[in-house]
Amino acid sequence: EFAKIDNHRALRTGFPEVIWGHGKTTEQIIKIMNVMRQRTSVVMATRIQPKVYIALKSEVSDLQYYESARICAIIQGKTSPEDLTPYTIEELYPGVIVVISAGTADLPVAEEAAITAELSGFQVQRLWDVGVAGIHRLLDNRDLIASASVLIVVAGMEGALPSVVAGLANSPVIAVPTSIGYGASFNGLAPLLTMLNSCSAGIGVVNIDNGFGAAILAGQILRTVAKFNQG
Amino acid sequence: EFAKIDNHRALRTGFPEVIWGHGKTTEQIIKIMNVMRQRTSVVMATRIQPKVYIALKSEVSDLQYYESARICAIIQGKTSPEDLTPYTIEELYPGVIVVISAGTADLPVAEEAAITAELSGFQVQRLWDVGVAGIHRLLDNRDLIASASVLIVVAGMEGALPSVVAGLANSPVIAVPTSIGYGASFNGLAPLLTMLNSCSAGIGVVNIDNGFGAAILAGQILRTVAKFNQG
Amino acid sequence: EFAKIDNHRALRTGFPEVIWGHGKTTEQIIKIMNVMRQRTSVVMATRIQPKVYIALKSEVSDLQYYESARICAIIQGKTSPEDLTPYTIEELYPGVIVVISAGTADLPVAEEAAITAELSGFQVQRLWDVGVAGIHRLLDNRDLIASASVLIVVAGMEGALPSVVAGLANSPVIAVPTSIGYGASFNGLAPLLTMLNSCSAGIGVVNIDNGFGAAILAGQILRTVAKFNQG
Amino acid sequence: EFAKIDNHRALRTGFPEVIWGHGKTTEQIIKIMNVMRQRTSVVMATRIQPKVYIALKSEVSDLQYYESARICAIIQGKTSPEDLTPYTIEELYPGVIVVISAGTADLPVAEEAAITAELSGFQVQRLWDVGVAGIHRLLDNRDLIASASVLIVVAGMEGALPSVVAGLANSPVIAVPTSIGYGASFNGLAPLLTMLNSCSAGIGVVNIDNGFGAAILAGQILRTVAKFNQG
Amino acid sequence: EFAKIDNHRALRTGFPEVIWGHGKTTEQIIKIMNVMRQRTSVVMATRIQPKVYIALKSEVSDLQYYESARICAIIQGKTSPEDLTPYTIEELYPGVIVVISAGTADLPVAEEAAITAELSGFQVQRLWDVGVAGIHRLLDNRDLIASASVLIVVAGMEGALPSVVAGLANSPVIAVPTSIGYGASFNGLAPLLTMLNSCSAGIGVVNIDNGFGAAILAGQILRTVAKFNQG
Amino acid sequence: EFAKIDNHRALRTGFPEVIWGHGKTTEQIIKIMNVMRQRTSVVMATRIQPKVYIALKSEVSDLQYYESARICAIIQGKTSPEDLTPYTIEELYPGVIVVISAGTADLPVAEEAAITAELSGFQVQRLWDVGVAGIHRLLDNRDLIASASVLIVVAGMEGALPSVVAGLANSPVIAVPTSIGYGASFNGLAPLLTMLNSCSAGIGVVNIDNGFGAAILAGQILRTVAKFNQG
Amino acid sequence: EFAKIDNHRALRTGFPEVIWGHGKTTEQIIKIMNVMRQRTSVVMATRIQPKVYIALKSEVSDLQYYESARICAIIQGKTSPEDLTPYTIEELYPGVIVVISAGTADLPVAEEAAITAELSGFQVQRLWDVGVAGIHRLLDNRDLIASASVLIVVAGMEGALPSVVAGLANSPVIAVPTSIGYGASFNGLAPLLTMLNSCSAGIGVVNIDNGFGAAILAGQILRTVAKFNQG
Amino acid sequence: EFAKIDNHRALRTGFPEVIWGHGKTTEQIIKIMNVMRQRTSVVMATRIQPKVYIALKSEVSDLQYYESARICAIIQGKTSPEDLTPYTIEELYPGVIVVISAGTADLPVAEEAAITAELSGFQVQRLWDVGVAGIHRLLDNRDLIASASVLIVVAGMEGALPSVVAGLANSPVIAVPTSIGYGASFNGLAPLLTMLNSCSAGIGVVNIDNGFGAAILAGQILRTVAKFNQG
Ligand SMILES: Nc1ncnc2c1ncn2[C@@H]1O[C@H](COP(=O)(O)O)[C@@H](O)[C@H]1O
Ligand SMILES: Nc1ncnc2c1ncn2[C@@H]1O[C@H](COP(=O)(O)O)[C@@H](O)[C@H]1O
Ligand SMILES: Nc1ncnc2c1ncn2[C@@H]1O[C@H](COP(=O)(O)O)[C@@H](O)[C@H]1O
Ligand SMILES: Nc1ncnc2c1ncn2[C@@H]1O[C@H](COP(=O)(O)O)[C@@H](O)[C@H]1O
Ligand SMILES: [Mg+2]
Ligand SMILES: [Mg+2]
Ligand SMILES: [Mg+2]
Ligand SMILES: [Mg+2]
Ligand SMILES: [Mg+2]
Ligand SMILES: [Mg+2]
Ligand SMILES: [Mg+2]
Ligand SMILES: [Mg+2]
Repeated sequence: EFAKIDNHRALRTGFPEVIWGHGKTTEQIIKIMNVMRQRTSVVMATRIQPKVYIALKSEVSDLQYYESARICAIIQGKTSPEDLTPYTIEELYPGVIVVISAGTADLPVAEEAAITAELSGFQVQRLWDVGVAGIHRLLDNRDLIASASVLIVVAGMEGALPSVVAGLANSPVIAVPTSIGYGASFNGLAPLLTMLNSCSAGIGVVNIDNGFGAAILAGQILRTVAKFNQG
Repeated sequence: EFAKIDNHRALRTGFPEVIWGHGKTTEQIIKIMNVMRQRTSVVMATRIQPKVYIALKSEVSDLQYYESARICAIIQGKTSPEDLTPYTIEELYPGVIVVISAGTADLPVAEEAAITAELSGFQVQRLWDVGVAGIHRLLDNRDLIASASVLIVVAGMEGALPSVVAGLANSPVIAVPTSIGYGASFNGLAPLLTMLNSCSAGIGVVNIDNGFGAAILAGQILRTVAKFNQG
Repeated sequence: EFAKIDNHRALRTGFPEVIWGHGKTTEQIIKIMNVMRQRTSVVMATRIQPKVYIALKSEVSDLQYYESARICAIIQGKTSPEDLTPYTIEELYPGVIVVISAGTADLPVAEEAAITAELSGFQVQRLWDVGVAGIHRLLDNRDLIASASVLIVVAGMEGALPSVVAGLANSPVIAVPTSIGYGASFNGLAPLLTMLNSCSAGIGVVNIDNGFGAAILAGQILRTVAKFNQG
Repeated sequence: EFAKIDNHRALRTGFPEVIWGHGKTTEQIIKIMNVMRQRTSVVMATRIQPKVYIALKSEVSDLQYYESARICAIIQGKTSPEDLTPYTIEELYPGVIVVISAGTADLPVAEEAAITAELSGFQVQRLWDVGVAGIHRLLDNRDLIASASVLIVVAGMEGALPSVVAGLANSPVIAVPTSIGYGASFNGLAPLLTMLNSCSAGIGVVNIDNGFGAAILAGQILRTVAKFNQG
Repeated sequence: EFAKIDNHRALRTGFPEVIWGHGKTTEQIIKIMNVMRQRTSVVMATRIQPKVYIALKSEVSDLQYYESARICAIIQGKTSPEDLTPYTIEELYPGVIVVISAGTADLPVAEEAAITAELSGFQVQRLWDVGVAGIHRLLDNRDLIASASVLIVVAGMEGALPSVVAGLANSPVIAVPTSIGYGASFNGLAPLLTMLNSCSAGIGVVNIDNGFGAAILAGQILRTVAKFNQG
Repeated sequence: EFAKIDNHRALRTGFPEVIWGHGKTTEQIIKIMNVMRQRTSVVMATRIQPKVYIALKSEVSDLQYYESARICAIIQGKTSPEDLTPYTIEELYPGVIVVISAGTADLPVAEEAAITAELSGFQVQRLWDVGVAGIHRLLDNRDLIASASVLIVVAGMEGALPSVVAGLANSPVIAVPTSIGYGASFNGLAPLLTMLNSCSAGIGVVNIDNGFGAAILAGQILRTVAKFNQG
Repeated sequence: EFAKIDNHRALRTGFPEVIWGHGKTTEQIIKIMNVMRQRTSVVMATRIQPKVYIALKSEVSDLQYYESARICAIIQGKTSPEDLTPYTIEELYPGVIVVISAGTADLPVAEEAAITAELSGFQVQRLWDVGVAGIHRLLDNRDLIASASVLIVVAGMEGALPSVVAGLANSPVIAVPTSIGYGASFNGLAPLLTMLNSCSAGIGVVNIDNGFGAAILAGQILRTVAKFNQG
Repeated sequence: EFAKIDNHRALRTGFPEVIWGHGKTTEQIIKIMNVMRQRTSVVMATRIQPKVYIALKSEVSDLQYYESARICAIIQGKTSPEDLTPYTIEELYPGVIVVISAGTADLPVAEEAAITAELSGFQVQRLWDVGVAGIHRLLDNRDLIASASVLIVVAGMEGALPSVVAGLANSPVIAVPTSIGYGASFNGLAPLLTMLNSCSAGIGVVNIDNGFGAAILAGQILRTVAKFNQG
C-alpha cells in the first residue's frame, strides 16, 4: 500500500499522525482520512490549498477548513456544528501557548501553529505584527509574554523577533523562520540562521514555515507539564 | 566598559548570564567572574580550553573544571569541596533531562549540555554512543527514553538520531547537531539540515555544537513544569 | 544530427541507452525510439509526464505507460499484450532488489527505480512508507531486508532511512535522496548530505530523485553476481 | 612597482588611501608608509597584529598603535607626543558618530570603526555590549541614540541589533556584521544576511568585520553635512 | 488584527510606514491605506503589479500609479491633479540624490528608489544604462556624479558599477544589487557579494532589488544634512 | 562508558566495527582496540597520523602501520610477522576490486580504500594517476577495467574520471571524490557534485575522502557474489 | 533614456553591442533595433522566445529567427533573402570554431554559440551529443578536434567533456556549463565547478548557459589571429 | 608507480606536463623532475614554498626559484647561468601577453601567470595595482591595453577589473579571481562570480588563484596565432 499509517504514534508520542497535504492526490488524502477517522476523533491535514479543500469537501461532508492556516480537519464528537474544536474548556491541557508573529505576511505560518495547537487540545493566544522595527509594539505586550507557558515566535525577513522575545520571557521559546522576504532572504535561510545563532539561549528552532512542527513541540512541552500535575 | 553584565537576566529568564569563553582574554574572563560572583552562587564559563583553565585557576582559586565539557565554574556555598554542584537532591527541579549522544566524538558537546544542566539545578541521565548504525543499542534503552521529561539528542555526521528518538519518545526533544564528521558534513551543516527536516514532529533544534543552549532550553521547559507544580 | 545513440553501450555496460525524457520534444523522443527499437527489445524513456505520454502514444501504438514511475516503454516480443515486462521468471537475473521508501510522497522516485529494474530483467520487492519516525514499521520487515541481494532506499525530508537500513542489512545499500520536503530541505540537499555522511558504511549514493540511476547500479551488481554464477 | 598609491584619492573622495595590512610584508608596508607620509599628515594601516607592529615600530619610530583596533598610524603635526589624533576640537567635522556593539567579542571591529573615524577627523561616542538578548541595556541609552548624526552598529552571532537601533533612531544606520559566533554563523554569513534583510529600512550594510569601511561611509555622510554647512 | 500600523514611526524616524505590497491581498492593502490616510499626506505601497493597481484603483479613486517603479500612492493636498508629488520646490530637502543604473533591465529597481525618494520630499537626478562594459558612458557624466549629495547605484549581473562610482565620487554611495542576470548570478547573489567586497570604501549595501530601502537611507542622510542646516 | 562497541555488527553486516581515529585520544583508541581484539582477528583504525601511530605502537606492540593509507591494524593469527594480511589466497573472497586514482595527490584516499579492502579479505588491483586530462593513460588499461568485479574510482579537482570509467566498464562503479584541489573545488564539493550528476548511470557515490566507505561497499558487493556462489 | 547604446563598442572591441532579450519589453527591443540598424549591418538579439519573435516580426519585417538558438537578427545587405548570414566565404575570418555539445538537451546553448559566431563572421563546425559516458563517440572525431582553431565545449549534468577535449586538443578551449540536469546539478553549478577545476589546463570558462559569451571570446581569439595575419 | 607522466602531452597540446607542487613530498617532486628533464628543456613546478625550494635545491643543483611566483624550474640549455628563460627573443612566440593585477596582494597569482608564460616562450608585460577604485590608474594605461594580443587580468575582493578592461580592449581577456579579501569574499567566490557574470562579453574565467591555467590558455591562443602565421 502507498501509506502505512502509524497508528501507534498517538500511544507513543501522544499525538496522532497528521496528513501532510503537500504532494498528495485528493484520492490519497481521502483514503487516508477515512482510515484515520476510525481511530481518532480529530483527523487533520496541513498544507491544503482552497481548491483542494473544495475537492475534498465534496467527498468528505463533515470536513472543516481553516483557510488562513491552510488546514482542514474532521472533528468528530462536536457538541454543535459551529464548534471549531471538540474540546470543552475543562478538557484543555493546562497552560497557554502564545503565538507571536513579526509581520502581516507571516500569518499563514503563525495560524498553522495556532490552529494545530487548538485542534490538539491546547489554549492559544495570538499576537500579530509586532516586528522589531517598532519595538514598542512588542514592549507594550510584556504582560502577555510573561503570562505564556510556551511561546511560538514566527518571523521572516531577518527573523530577529525570537531573540528579543526570549530576552524578555520566562518560558521556552520555539522559533519558526518563514520564507517571507526577498533577495538575500534566500527563501527563509536568513531568518533560519538568525534564529539558530540567537544570543538569547533557550530557543528551539524548527524548519522554515513549519508552524505545524512548532505547535507539536509546544504541545509536547505542555503535556509534560500535565504529566507532572497529575502525578 | 567592555562588558555590560545583564544582571536582570536571572530575574527575567531564571538563568544568570553565563560567560562565553571563546575569544575573550583571561583578564576579561576574570574581571567578569569577579563581578558576577557578587550576585549569583554559580558563576559559569563555557568553551574553556585546558590551558585557559590553568591560567584562570592561578587567579581564581575556587575555580572548578569539567574537562570533557570544556566548562569551568565557581560554585559558592558548597557543603564540601568535592561537591560538583551546590544543590542537594531536594533543591533540584522536578523531572529528568536525558542526554543522548550518537558517537564517541560527540562527547564534548553532550557533556557541555549535561554539565550546564546540572550546574543549573536539573537532574541529568547520560546515554552515550548509541548512533543509528546499530539501532539495537538505542532500542535496548527504551525505558530510559520513556522515563525522560525532556530529551537532548546530540549527533554529528548525518545526525539521524533525533528523528528516531522523537519517534519513540513521549516528551519534547531538543536536537544538537555537532561539527563531527568530514567532507560533505560541511562542519555540521549536514546534521543541522537533517534535524530541521526531521519527519518526526516535536523537535526543537539549536546551533551546531551548542550543548549549552540545549541545556538552557531543557531547563526552561522543566522550570515551566515547576511553576505549575507549585501553583 | 541532434542525437548520437550509443549503440555500443549494451555491449560495453550490459544496459542499452535509455531516453531521458526531460527537455526533449515529442518529435525528438519518437525519432530516437524508432531508431532504438531496431536494436533492442525494450526501449525505455524516463521522466514522461502523462500529457507527453498521450502525445507519444498517438504515434507509437505499442507504447506502455507506468504512470506512478513516469516511465514509458516499448516492449517487443511480449507473449501477451498484458505483460508488463518481456521476461519469463527463468530469464530474470538471480537475486532480489528490495526497494524501500520512507514516505508516500517519495513514491514516484521509488517506482522509477522499481520499474527500471523490472524492465531490465531484475526481480523487485517493494516496501513503502516505513520512515524512521515510526521505526517499528521498518523493524517489522527485518526478514524482507535480510532476504535482499541489494537494497535501494529512497527518502526525502531528512533522509535518515538508509543509515538505519544499512545498519540492519547484510547486502549493499543504494541510497536515493528525494526533493520531497520544504524549507531547509533545499530541494533534496538535506537528505543528500545525510546519506553521504551516513555513519553506516557501505552505502552508495546517487543524485537527488535519481531512481533510474539507483536501479542501473543495483542491476550492475546483480549482473556481477550472475557472471560469477555462470563461470 | 608592486604598489600604485592613489594620490588623487584624497582629492576625489576626501580620504587618503589607507594601507590594508593583511597579506603585505613588513617591508612593503614600510615602503608605502614612507611614500605616503610625504603627502598626508595621517598615514594609517589596518589589520596590523601586535607582532607586525613591533617589527614596523623598530623601523618607523613615530608609529602609534591602537591595539584593540589593530590599527597603527603615523600622526604628523601633533602638538604633543601623547596626542592620539592630530586634530583640535575645532578642526573636527560637525556631528557625532555613535558606534554601538552587541557583544564583548565584537570589540576589535567596533574599535576599528571608532579609531578610523577619529583619525579621519570625526567625533565618536562608544556604546559597547548592548545586544538584543537584554533589550533594556539598549533602551537605557535612547538619548545617546537620539543624539547621533550617524550610527555604526556592530554585531555578530545573529546580528539583530541594527534592526532594533534603526527602529529607534532618527539618523542613518551603518550595519557591520562580524565573524563572531560559531556553527551556523558560518563566519559571519548569518549576521550579514540578517542585516541585509532588516525590516527596518534605512540601513546600509558593509562587509563582514569591515569596521574600517563603516567609518569611511559615516565620514562621507558627515562630510556631506559639512559641505552644506559651509555653503 | 492582522496589521499593527507603526504610527510612531514618522515621529521616531521621520518616515511614515510604507506598505510592502508583496503577499498582501487587495483587501488588506485597502484597509491599511484607509487607516494610514488619516495621519499622513502621502500613503505609499511598493511592489504593486499593474493588475493589483487596477483592483485597488476601483476602490481608491485618488490612487496614483508609477508603473515602471511598481509603486502606487495616495497623494493628499496636491495643488493640481497632475502633480506627481505634493511638494513645491521650496519644500524639498536640500541636496540631490543621483540614482544611477547599470543596465536597462535594472530600471524597475532604480525607479523604485527614485520614486520613493521623490514621494518622500527629495530631489532626484536619474542616470540610466551606464554599466562598466562601456566605461566612457560613466566618465562622460563625471559632473553629475560630482554634483550629487548622495548616490544610489543600481546594478545586476556582476554589479561592478558602485565600485567605480565610489572611486570617482565625493559623497556617500548606496549600492543596490539586482536579481537581473542568469546562471552564476544566482538571483543577485553575485552583485551582492561584489558590492560588499568593494575595494572602494564608503559604500553601504542594501538587499537585492531593494530600491525602496536605498531611498530611505539616502533620505535619512539628507535629513541629517537638513537638521544641521537648520541648527 | 564513552563507547558502545557494536559487536553485533559483524553478524549483521559481515564487517566488524572499525575505529575512526579522527578526534579520539590515544587512550581511547587503545582501550577500544583492546576490547575489540577479544572478538575479531583484524582490529583496524583509520585516519591515524604517523605521530599517533608512534604513540599507539609503544602501547600496542603488534600494531601494523600502512602509512600511505593512514591506517593501522592489529592482525592476529598471521603466519609470519611480515604478512600484511591474515589471509591466504584461498581465503580471499572471489572477484577483484580495481582501485583507480586520477592524480598522485589522491593517493592517501585511494590507499585507504585499497588497504581496507585487503584487510577485509578482498583481492585488490591498483591503477594510479590516470586522470582524464591524458585519456590515453586510461584507455591503455581497458583490459584491467574489463577484468574488475567492482571498480573504486578516486578523483579530486573536477572528478570526471568515474564518468569515463563507468562508460567503459561492465561492473559497478563506486566513486570517491577527494578534497584535492583549490579555489572553486571548495574542499571536494566540485568532484562530489560531478560524480552525483554523472551522465553515466550505475555509479554509487560516497563521502568526500571516504576511501574506507568505498571499500566497505565494494566488499559488500563481493560478499553478495560469494553468497550466491556458495548457495 | 532607458538605454544608452554603446556605439563605440564595435570600434573598441570589434563587436557591435547585441541586445539581451531577457526582461525587455517588445517595444524596448524594437526601439533599440531601429537605432542600431542605422550603424551596423547585423543587428542581433539573444534569448528571444518564439512568441516574442512573432510579436517582433510583425513590426520588423526583415527579422530572421534562428529558433533552436533563440536568436533573432536583422541582416542587411544580404545578396538573397535566403542567406542566413551577410558574409561571403572570402569575408569570413581565418580559422574554424568547432562547437561540441555533450547531450541533446544542451543544444539551445550550443546553437546560441554557433549562430552568434556565424553572424559575427566566423566559420563554425558542429559536433553534437558526444558526452563522456560513451567516450568512443568523441574519440571517433579526433580529426575534427585537431582541425579546430578554437573549441567551444558545451555540457550540462557533470560537465566533464571540456576536460577530455582539452586533453586531446591543440587549441584554446572555451567551456560552457549548462543548466541541463536536475537535483545536485543545482541549475548548472555542478558543471560550472567541474569546468573551473579541470585538471586540463588551458580552459576558459563562461557563465552557465552563456553560449553567446563563448562565441564572442572565440571570435576575439580569431580576430587576434587575423590581426597578425594581416600585419 | 605513484605518477604516470603524460609524455604525449607536449605533442598533443604543445605544453609539457608541469608539476603541481601542492601536496607532494620533496621526494616525489625530485623523482618526477628527474624523469621529466630527460625529455624537455624546461621542467617547471608551481606552488613551491620557499622552504620546499631550499630542500629541492640541495638535491637539484640547477634549480631556479621565482619567489614571488612560487615557481621553481630547471632550465636546460641556457646560454649563461643568469638567464631566467632559455629563449632568445627570436625564439619567442609572436604577440604580447599583458598581465594586469588589481591590488598588491594579488601579486603572487599574477606572477604565477607571468612566469609560467615566460618559461613557456611568450613575451609578457606587467601592469600592477590598477584596481577600479582609482580608475584613472587603468585609463592611464590604455595604450598598453591596446597593444596586448591577450590580456590576463587578476583581481581579488570584488573582482571588477576584468569587466572594465574587456570594455576597453580589443583582444581576448582571461580573468583570474584571487582569494584575496575577507568576509563575504568567501575565499574568492565573490570575484569568481563577478567575472562569470561580467556584462562585458569575451572573457574566459579560470579557477580562483589559478595564474598557471591563465598562462596556459593565453599561450594556447598565441600558439594558434603562430600556426596561422607560419601556414
Ligand atoms: N505542515 C507540516 N510540516 C511538517 N510535517 C508535517 C506537516 N504536516 C504533517 N506533517 C508530518 O508529516 C507526516 C505525514 O507525512 P505523510 O506520510 O507524507 O503524510 C506526519 O507524521 C506529520 O507529523
Ligand atoms: N531519469 C534519469 N535520470 C538520470 N539519467 C537518465 C534518466 N533517464 C535516462 N537517463 C540517462 O540519460 C542518457 C540519455 O540522455 P539523452 O542523450 O539526453 O537522452 C542515457 O544515457 C541514460 O542513461
Ligand atoms: N519594497 C520594499 N522592500 C523592503 N521593505 C519595504 C518595501 N516596501 C515597504 N517596505 C517596508 O515594509 C514595512 C511594511 O511591511 P508590512 O507590515 O508587511 O506591510 C514598512 O516598514 C516598510 O518600511
Ligand atoms: N575513515 C572513515 N570514514 C568514515 N567512517 C569511518 C571511517 N573509519 C571508521 N569509520 C566508521 O566509523 C564508525 C566508528 O565510529 P566511532 O564510534 O566514532 O569510532 C565505524 O562504524 C566505522 O564504520
Ligand atoms: Mg507590519
Ligand atoms: Mg561509535
Ligand atoms: Mg507516511
Ligand atoms: Mg555580553
Ligand atoms: Mg545597456
Ligand atoms: Mg598526474
Ligand atoms: Mg545523448
Ligand atoms: Mg592598491
